[in-house]
Amino acid sequence: VTLASLDTESPKTDHELLVVTIATEENDGFRQFMKSAKKYGFDVKVFGMGLEWQGGTMESIGGGHKINILKEGLKPYKDRKDLILMFVDSYDVIITESKETLLEKFYKFNARVLFAAENTCWPDRSLADKYPGVKESEKRYLNSGGFIGFAQEVYEMVTYQPIKNDEDDQLFYTQIFLNRGLRHEWGMKLDTRAEIFQNLNHALGEIMIKYKGSHSFMYNVKTGTTPIVIHGNGPIKAEFFRLANYLADGWTATAGCQACKEDLLDLVSLKESDYPVVLIASFIEYPTPFIREFFEQLAGLNYPKSRIQIYIHNSVALHTAAVEKFVSEHEAEYMRVVVTAPERRVSERVARDWTVEECIRTNCNYLLMLDSIVQVTNPDLLTGLIKQNRSIIAPMLKRPGKLWSNFWGALNFDGFYARSEDYMDIAEYNKLGLWNVPHLSNALLIQGHRLPALKGAHSASLTVDPDMSFCQVARKKMVFMYVDNQVYWGHLVNAESFETNHLNNELFNIFQNPLDWKRRYIHKDYEKSLEEGAVIEQPCQDVYWFPIVSDTFCDEFVAEFENYGQWSGGTNHDPRLAGAYENVPTVDIHMNQVGLEQQWLKFLEVYVRPLQESVFTGYFHNPPQAIMNFIVRYKPEEQPYLRPHHDASTYTINIALNRPGIDFEGGGCRFVRYNCSITSPRKGWMFMHPGRLTHFHEGLRTTAGTRYIMISFVDP
Amino acid sequence: VTLASLDTESPKTDHELLVVTIATEENDGFRQFMKSAKKYGFDVKVFGMGLEWQGGTMESIGGGHKINILKEGLKPYKDRKDLILMFVDSYDVIITESKETLLEKFYKFNARVLFAAENTCWPDRSLADKYPGVKESEKRYLNSGGFIGFAQEVYEMVTYQPIKNDEDDQLFYTQIFLNRGLRHEWGMKLDTRAEIFQNLNHALGEIMIKYKGSHSFMYNVKTGTTPIVIHGNGPIKAEFFRLANYLADGWTATAGCQACKEDLLDLVSLKESDYPVVLIASFIEYPTPFIREFFEQLAGLNYPKSRIQIYIHNSVALHTAAVEKFVSEHEAEYMRVVVTAPERRVSERVARDWTVEECIRTNCNYLLMLDSIVQVTNPDLLTGLIKQNRSIIAPMLKRPGKLWSNFWGALNFDGFYARSEDYMDIAEYNKLGLWNVPHLSNALLIQGHRLPALKGAHSASLTVDPDMSFCQVARKKMVFMYVDNQVYWGHLVNAESFETNHLNNELFNIFQNPLDWKRRYIHKDYEKSLEEGAVIEQPCQDVYWFPIVSDTFCDEFVAEFENYGQWSGGTNHDPRLAGAYENVPTVDIHMNQVGLEQQWLKFLEVYVRPLQESVFTGYFHNPPQAIMNFIVRYKPEEQPYLRPHHDASTYTINIALNRPGIDFEGGGCRFVRYNCSITSPRKGWMFMHPGRLTHFHEGLRTTAGTRYIMISFVDP
Ligand SMILES: O=C(O)CCC(=O)C(=O)O
Ligand SMILES: O=C(O)CCC(=O)C(=O)O
Ligand SMILES: [Fe+2]
Ligand SMILES: [Fe+2]
Ligand SMILES: [Mn+2]
Ligand SMILES: [Mn+2]
Ligand SMILES: [Mn+2]
Ligand SMILES: [Mn+2]
Repeated sequence: VTLASLDTESPKTDHELLVVTIATEENDGFRQFMKSAKKYGFDVKVFGMGLEWQGGTMESIGGGHKINILKEGLKPYKDRKDLILMFVDSYDVIITESKETLLEKFYKFNARVLFAAENTCWPDRSLADKYPGVKESEKRYLNSGGFIGFAQEVYEMVTYQPIKNDEDDQLFYTQIFLNRGLRHEWGMKLDTRAEIFQNLNHALGEIMIKYKGSHSFMYNVKTGTTPIVIHGNGPIKAEFFRLANYLADGWTATAGCQACKEDLLDLVSLKESDYPVVLIASFIEYPTPFIREFFEQLAGLNYPKSRIQIYIHNSVALHTAAVEKFVSEHEAEYMRVVVTAPERRVSERVARDWTVEECIRTNCNYLLMLDSIVQVTNPDLLTGLIKQNRSIIAPMLKRPGKLWSNFWGALNFDGFYARSEDYMDIAEYNKLGLWNVPHLSNALLIQGHRLPALKGAHSASLTVDPDMSFCQVARKKMVFMYVDNQVYWGHLVNAESFETNHLNNELFNIFQNPLDWKRRYIHKDYEKSLEEGAVIEQPCQDVYWFPIVSDTFCDEFVAEFENYGQWSGGTNHDPRLAGAYENVPTVDIHMNQVGLEQQWLKFLEVYVRPLQESVFTGYFHNPPQAIMNFIVRYKPEEQPYLRPHHDASTYTINIALNRPGIDFEGGGCRFVRYNCSITSPRKGWMFMHPGRLTHFHEGLRTTAGTRYIMISFVDP
Repeated sequence: VTLASLDTESPKTDHELLVVTIATEENDGFRQFMKSAKKYGFDVKVFGMGLEWQGGTMESIGGGHKINILKEGLKPYKDRKDLILMFVDSYDVIITESKETLLEKFYKFNARVLFAAENTCWPDRSLADKYPGVKESEKRYLNSGGFIGFAQEVYEMVTYQPIKNDEDDQLFYTQIFLNRGLRHEWGMKLDTRAEIFQNLNHALGEIMIKYKGSHSFMYNVKTGTTPIVIHGNGPIKAEFFRLANYLADGWTATAGCQACKEDLLDLVSLKESDYPVVLIASFIEYPTPFIREFFEQLAGLNYPKSRIQIYIHNSVALHTAAVEKFVSEHEAEYMRVVVTAPERRVSERVARDWTVEECIRTNCNYLLMLDSIVQVTNPDLLTGLIKQNRSIIAPMLKRPGKLWSNFWGALNFDGFYARSEDYMDIAEYNKLGLWNVPHLSNALLIQGHRLPALKGAHSASLTVDPDMSFCQVARKKMVFMYVDNQVYWGHLVNAESFETNHLNNELFNIFQNPLDWKRRYIHKDYEKSLEEGAVIEQPCQDVYWFPIVSDTFCDEFVAEFENYGQWSGGTNHDPRLAGAYENVPTVDIHMNQVGLEQQWLKFLEVYVRPLQESVFTGYFHNPPQAIMNFIVRYKPEEQPYLRPHHDASTYTINIALNRPGIDFEGGGCRFVRYNCSITSPRKGWMFMHPGRLTHFHEGLRTTAGTRYIMISFVDP
């Protein structure tokens, strides 16, 4: 048989395939690669582990060290005719199809050595013209991050001439390839259509992720191929890792997050005393609304306190009381509680790095860094995140209803925030899963054995915030940061424009933190009135009665006004009004006197209006208007009652702020025309009645104690 | 006994007293005097009756004729020692106490002849200084209208020297009195303190009427006396006659009008055919609102039509139809009906004088002149006035609620209107009675036998209105004119600002003639809703239902708008509104389009508001405001229904203008929240409901015919 005739015979296709790669350390990039190789049945030989890397920055000129490691490593296989070797990088590579598919594709090339190709000629642009021509849609230039070939040719090639560790490996292979003699001698070809190898640098625009049931793959829309070895070459690592979330069947549209179900670490079967030790480090760096709830939730986590150390870095004197309350109530239950008070003037950066050190020092298993703006409403946070068994993991947290979150989906060229293609889907819970992202903040759970790599990370770059510095280090060290949005963990409060000059600052915070405001101040049964088919109590004709505000609201509200203290005289002369005349004066304080008017109008719009619309069908007035919003105080020795009158309103709301029979005796409201009274107002309940015409009414005599009500004349 | 001792003996006091007076004709002044003299037991001898008077105008220089008549008349008594004579004028005198009281007072003077005295020296001012001095408060000068004295001295005095008929009688007596010899010889004194004689000229400020039970008397506040013979000397006749209404017990505060019960002429016992014949002359001299009612009331008088002649002087073409309707309906029932149509151009003056002539010519017993502005609401007018048996009598008539009436209480110096002291009390029915007044108009009943004196009276003075001319003549001829306010006879409509360009002009007349408007347009049961304890129908929750307008209102109102005819398109675009957008459009016409808006607002204020206040207790908004006032038309083939909505009102009124089941089928109004409908609206009834919040409502489908309603959005 001639060589030619041998060539046309169906060639031998049952070679062994060995994947060889080089890694000097086992970082998360390496682990991801190995996991994908294993998944698709590849045998992998790793060279260089534990060596000190001498090849320069992986992504600038350099990498000769790789070739020198390979020369050594491949020696045992140099004569193996039955062996096909595939070399790939590991930290920035993921394999997405089976060995068989890959080999089949390789055989079709009819090559002895097939190199990955890319769209740019690097590192020596001047060599571009020397490459053989390709079609417009194809990749013309060699990339050294991946090649596949028969063992003999591969070995001859890598050993063809010497290279220094800091010389460039890609230039080394390029020169061989551009030498027509060598190219033909070793049967070298380029994978110009990315049949097997997809280099992503300068190619992000030509690829997309596709799904087939529970299988995910990459599709190159330019070449029409489905490459198998995906290489995040160049400076687009973050985008590569983002794509890797989906690849190797990590996430598909129909099966969801399959990666989330792998390598789990479930604590359920453990005895409490065997639970991993967690150091929870809380950072209060600025005045933070709803800090009371922050501590309540901290104390309420479903995790044995005996396995938790608490560290609190408090920079805000305003919150010292809240910190002390938490400490005094719970100190005994925790393993340990350490507080840095504001007077210590320890910076956030230093404190954060200290917690890393401290966790290492005390052999703790996890460090949870938790900022004061985090509202953990899901008490299973710790067990839930630990179970995912990732180096760094954060619960996905957002300002409710806003896009502002605690993760970045992508990085800008300058290393700052960029919006990734899937950011919205993740932030809005359209795609649920675990997402490797380039930046996390506010709530990070770090596995203890990753901490050494992160020592001093917050101080690595002093020109950026500690969290950015930290994430830069984590990215460089390839300690992956995942954000978990599989369940609702909680949310971020907005500490911007937080007025701290009040007695109960949160009362004023309805605009900045509507959800927290609702959770603290709205009655737990509020929503029931709005359910389909709800029966609303109607104690008097066209007077409707609803639970609306919480006990806390009532107490803080009354305290706030009593603290302000400038009660009106209850006489007709009222300089606060246009005209300075009040026909039916009460002893009261108007909302605008304490600076609560805008908030109150928001309350009317958000909470009162829907109730109104549900009972007074067909009446719509959005937003509701009200000029007269005030708290009224009745006392036997002051103003005990209010004579019959109408209100300057379409409808009036009347909220009971304390308890008949306990805080006061008597009181209530009587509708004269219907001879109907509400004599047992319920604290936190509101009744609503038409103002002008039908509901002539009076405030009944308070005979003991003090009765407080909140009144608004809505739509005057 | 000496003369002196005779003098000190108690003097003889049982003389006979004869009153002598002079009258050439029996006019109402004379009759009034005679009646008072008779009442108080005086014998009166009248001289000169039937003679032609030659003494000039009674009240300027002249009167010598009186003395010449007396000389003759007193001759028979010249030697009577037992006789005291009192001379008084008659036309302008009234006696107010008994003969005995008078004589007693006379004896106290110890005079032989006592003359009336007055405050001014007349007719020869130069003689003033010759009078004996008197106290500041007393009257110094002789008045010849009254004197009393022993028959011998009186006769000697009047015959002392000759006097021509046209020489002055008062100067004649003055010269005697100022002659000391004669004064002493005849024992002459002046009644300087008005013990007996009160001359009213220049003395009106010093007298007042007082009452003691059923007795009235005059009191002189200057002299402290109660004069008996009251003399309206000089040009203050009208004021004298006014006072005379009270004097001689004519009217007192506790007994009321005693004069009203004297000399009555009751027709009740007469057969119809024996009733006096009355010529009723109606004068329509200008466009007159409510002429329809005028004729209805005319036809409705309780008096046999067979004894009534009708004359109608119509100067107004607008009213020809109304006149013709009256004539055609009633001509046959009356003795006679004569009409002067506007085309005849017969002047009012001529027509009025003609009725006087015609009544004389036909021997009618009474002439009733009745102007078209007179609304006779008391059908007993004729019998009631006839019964009082006065020369001329008018029912007291006013513009309701105004001071404008059909009589004058006093005259100005120029003969025009002046307000008398008792005008208000009479006009406002505080004093009820029959009041002799200087001027009457609009409705005068004249006794037939007085008419000859009044021939041509309307034309006597062509420079003033016919009624003034007439009254001037009546006053001069002393034909007394009484106004009767003992009962409510009716009222005057106000014909000013009467717009005559509408189909139903009276609809627009609420301001000018509120009472007539009410009588024609307000539902007869309207007031019932306002009675104490009235139960108001409430067909749906807080929807109140009242009768409010008459059938006539509904019919005229609909006709007026249909006559206008510019119905809106029923689309959202409505150029009549600010913003040109109507959210819930109806096919309608707004009040202001037909010029009824101001009237309608008055209607809301006067009729709707009290109902509102009675049902929506405590709500006061006066006057009500409304920008949206409109009539709505529903038809199956036009706009048949109105979708659920609220109104821009505190309360809405909805007046049904025609009849369900007759004028239309279907229709009505449904209150969605209460699932309550008013499906049988009652014509002329209004329902009232809150607008904005509770009463989401819809206009139900009109399935046949045309439904009309009137809507106002009150207090938007
Ligand atoms: O005392 C009450 O419940 C009535 C208060 C009230 O009507 C008002 O302030 O306008
Ligand atoms: O048809 C009716 O009675 C209702 C009319 C109405 O609601 C309106 O015009 O606003
Ligand atoms: Fe009120
Ligand atoms: Fe309506
Ligand atoms: Mn690489
Ligand atoms: Mn107030
Ligand atoms: Mn006289
Ligand atoms: Mn309209």
